[in-house]
Amino acid sequence: MKQLQEYITEIPDFPKKGIIFRDITTVLTNPDGFRLAVDEFMRILEDTEFDLIAGIEARGFVFSAPLAYEFGKPLVLVRKKGKLPRETVSQSYKLEYGTAEIEIHRDDIKKGQKVVLIDDILATGGTFEAAVRLIEKQGGEVVKILCLVELEGLNGRDNLKKYDVKSLVTYEGA
Amino acid sequence: MKQLQEYITEIPDFPKKGIIFRDITTVLTNPDGFRLAVDEFMRILEDTEFDLIAGIEARGFVFSAPLAYEFGKPLVLVRKKGKLPRETVSQSYKLEYGTAEIEIHRDDIKKGQKVVLIDDILATGGTFEAAVRLIEKQGGEVVKILCLVELEGLNGRDNLKKYDVKSLVTYEGA
Repeated sequence: MKQLQEYITEIPDFPKKGIIFRDITTVLTNPDGFRLAVDEFMRILEDTEFDLIAGIEARGFVFSAPLAYEFGKPLVLVRKKGKLPRETVSQSYKLEYGTAEIEIHRDDIKKGQKVVLIDDILATGGTFEAAVRLIEKQGGEVVKILCLVELEGLNGRDNLKKYDVKSLVTYEGA
Repeated sequence: MKQLQEYITEIPDFPKKGIIFRDITTVLTNPDGFRLAVDEFMRILEDTEFDLIAGIEARGFVFSAPLAYEFGKPLVLVRKKGKLPRETVSQSYKLEYGTAEIEIHRDDIKKGQKVVLIDDILATGGTFEAAVRLIEKQGGEVVKILCLVELEGLNGRDNLKKYDVKSLVTYEGA
């Protein structure tokens, strides 16, 4: 059987020379790859007590949705600013150039709820860190952070030291 | 048991006076609602012969992902311009103000493949129509168009007459 890593496409020198871009869309377009990924996330969560799953826009939705369905847990969308129609809480974070802002609906997470947070890639950890803050602002507790791919060279874990971070595929570089 | 419609939140006078916005995020945050929606989509697809599922960014991902997982079919992401890292085909479409563009990876769909296309809401049908064109440009055949909510008053079906459109919840107005 193929390993999950074999379904990820490496694109050399993208977006700039010297960077290898990890394209996870080929995990999704291959049913065996997608099943491997979702099943592995399920195995990790098997013994985790949690109340809801939060997926970060947009590729985080792709993994959080089947997990929410399988476990029968609420699915919370962590969205880019301006996409949610009701009252939100928001958190800004730094990008390489400039800043970005993410939001959840204010009533999505209640005090004391245990939250599993998911995105596709852990790079510098900036987006995850902002999402954690959003959840904690509402009194939620992040019990697990899941990602498909971790780029160790960018040291994202250093920003998430207090949390239980699990990645399915790890690359040494950036 | 509650009906699917009861999980949708109505927001009066949003984004402007006289419009009732249909917020589907409360379907997702309620496990019974999300299960109802996904199971109903599954029932519709039970007797449909198809090769892959295409979900439209971003809320289309939330429904297409569990379906792709359950049926063991490839999941193709129909994304906003500039988000996909490899060679794409793109299609522009009109918005109320200006235009937008969506893309798929060129190798996502092969000639003759039968495609199920999913998004959360059918309004004017502009996004669906652009996604259909993308699929047909690659020689794919759209065998089913699925949405959670259809706003009949906006006549989206008129732009999709040749296709088998199924919506789970229908509102008469806009």
